[in-house]
Amino acid sequence: MQPDLHSRTLAAHTLHQFRTLSPLTHCMTNEVVQSFTANTLLALGASPAMVIEPEEASQFATIASALLINVGTLTQRRATAMRAAAERAHLAKTPWTLDPVAVGVLDYRRYFCLDLLTLRPAAIRGNASEILALAGMNSGGRGVDTTDTAVAALPAAQALARQAGTIVVVTGEVDYVTDGQRTVSVSGGDPLMTRVVGTGCALSAVVAASCALHGDRLDNVASACSWMKQAGKIASEQATGPGSFIPAFLDALYNLEMQEQA
Amino acid sequence: MQPDLHSRTLAAHTLHQFRTLSPLTHCMTNEVVQSFTANTLLALGASPAMVIEPEEASQFATIASALLINVGTLTQRRATAMRAAAERAHLAKTPWTLDPVAVGVLDYRRYFCLDLLTLRPAAIRGNASEILALAGMNSGGRGVDTTDTAVAALPAAQALARQAGTIVVVTGEVDYVTDGQRTVSVSGGDPLMTRVVGTGCALSAVVAASCALHGDRLDNVASACSWMKQAGKIASEQATGPGSFIPAFLDALYNLEMQEQA
Amino acid sequence: MQPDLHSRTLAAHTLHQFRTLSPLTHCMTNEVVQSFTANTLLALGASPAMVIEPEEASQFATIASALLINVGTLTQRRATAMRAAAERAHLAKTPWTLDPVAVGVLDYRRYFCLDLLTLRPAAIRGNASEILALAGMNSGGRGVDTTDTAVAALPAAQALARQAGTIVVVTGEVDYVTDGQRTVSVSGGDPLMTRVVGTGCALSAVVAASCALHGDRLDNVASACSWMKQAGKIASEQATGPGSFIPAFLDALYNLEMQEQA
Repeated sequence: MQPDLHSRTLAAHTLHQFRTLSPLTHCMTNEVVQSFTANTLLALGASPAMVIEPEEASQFATIASALLINVGTLTQRRATAMRAAAERAHLAKTPWTLDPVAVGVLDYRRYFCLDLLTLRPAAIRGNASEILALAGMNSGGRGVDTTDTAVAALPAAQALARQAGTIVVVTGEVDYVTDGQRTVSVSGGDPLMTRVVGTGCALSAVVAASCALHGDRLDNVASACSWMKQAGKIASEQATGPGSFIPAFLDALYNLEMQEQA
Repeated sequence: MQPDLHSRTLAAHTLHQFRTLSPLTHCMTNEVVQSFTANTLLALGASPAMVIEPEEASQFATIASALLINVGTLTQRRATAMRAAAERAHLAKTPWTLDPVAVGVLDYRRYFCLDLLTLRPAAIRGNASEILALAGMNSGGRGVDTTDTAVAALPAAQALARQAGTIVVVTGEVDYVTDGQRTVSVSGGDPLMTRVVGTGCALSAVVAASCALHGDRLDNVASACSWMKQAGKIASEQATGPGSFIPAFLDALYNLEMQEQA
Repeated sequence: MQPDLHSRTLAAHTLHQFRTLSPLTHCMTNEVVQSFTANTLLALGASPAMVIEPEEASQFATIASALLINVGTLTQRRATAMRAAAERAHLAKTPWTLDPVAVGVLDYRRYFCLDLLTLRPAAIRGNASEILALAGMNSGGRGVDTTDTAVAALPAAQALARQAGTIVVVTGEVDYVTDGQRTVSVSGGDPLMTRVVGTGCALSAVVAASCALHGDRLDNVASACSWMKQAGKIASEQATGPGSFIPAFLDALYNLEMQEQA
């Protein structure tokens, strides 16, 4: 079955809602990408907050519009806080999103993520190796990088989505967004995005925030992917390398709505 | 009572002293903004150092010219280290500054910050919601963002300054700096500063460093606010979004003295 | 004895190998510079991964091509993880590199680093004060900054290299790379590099990654220094301050090979 191509008009429409609602997004993410993640959410008009002590994270998960859990630099203490926050989010019906960084390579975090799936994430965003590993079809990966293509992981993504009752995003040159029944594809972006740390992690945060929107969640999540792909393409056309890509990317996200409305 | 407008000539004069002394500034700040905070201090000519293990933080608080405590991503372990450092700073008469991030929303950090006040901070820098909460007039806030204007929090800032024997900075479109008796206002800046993570936290670090200077502390702290407002205005005029704002802002801080001397 | 000047032709040749092998570099580094470190490695074509929980770090140290240990924001928990990773790297013959940030000033980390030396690092990279302190000729330093020149620390660097059986890099206006017998010098760079946080820490990560290359390790490490000096010079010529230096520096690293081949 050929996935449907996600519509840019829909993405622009969703962005308008995103900027209006400005989801308060509780990010429990890795140490490396916190600043870039916050700046990505701010550029798009969301309101990020990083709260990590177990007691506080648990309290904040009920105040926030959405929660992100990214296991990139997992520690025991952080795992305790993440688990507490996901539990409270689950009870409070706050949508939460999982980014299973490098679960194909490291056992401790794979068990942690598999256990978290029982708390029903609204979405999961990973690269092909991560999604394959989470679906029990471990292929490894190389550090935090994938060794598989997104399309090769699509059946695993669809199976995982059905099994966990969630939306799965598997990203690569083309992103695929699936709930196990419907699948849409999002193209765009640029290889330069892989030479900057945190573009995938920041996408997960935007996916998390988009789960707080009204309307069809699959479309909202695909719209989040579309914004990032569009901004990545604009930025890479302006950049002379990964250094100048970063400010250009945040500027492109910030100015995206105007261009879409033109 | 109308606050006095802080003088830019005074700010330029203070900046000259700041660059000459290059305060060694011990920053115990949140994970999200550490890099931007360090780069802000370096651009202005200070010498930042982030030291966080309780034993080390305690030793370093006596070596440093100034200490910053920012509770943005507070943890129990970090709270222990911050408390130890503040105690040593208090004993050694090293001026220390408190940034009470989101104390209006989260109980754990509010109690921690209220307890720290007994160790006599030299300055406190927060947004309106944070200052209201610390003064016991809780209005909440939305995550790390304020839901109040700075001027609405001015009476609370003045009361808090008198009660804690400190200088309170309440920031917003206009910043107010008060010791409970005198109050000065600092205008400038640009709304784009709120679309970049860490501008407020970085200001707190500059406020902390400015408390190491000679002369009138209220004037020194107001000068710190003025440098950031001026650089924010220059950068926003050059930027096409929050991404290009960041390098432009650091460049503006770095080049500020020359412009003032012209 | 006058150190030999490192050859740029050799540096270009080594860079080609670096980009081809793309060393998977396990970075256990301080909180402040993680993002900049990852972006520096990515710009040069390496594959960074930050893994910090003791159990995971230990597992990952055997998968990675190289390991970096930087004690900038050391904590007890992080020290445990670093020690475990260094032990596994030592057993697995994975080359690991030590960046002894501020060991001249803080006792806890100095003892930790001295103890780590028994696990035979492939390289040590520090400023003059740090190398002097590690060699037992403590001169202090000011916070994370050095109070000595690199050339003054050269005898200490040579003694440390012989004693620990490692390569020592002492950086400053000129960098010196020594194994205790041979010493090469690397010039270039720009004072603006000291106004941006993390250029030294990022160099240590590149040094760590370069230890995974084939060929003469001293030459490989000196090449790593050369890439950073060259990019620093190019970036400072383009920048109007430390803010614009950062993207220009990453772009220069990314585009370095092409320029060398021209």
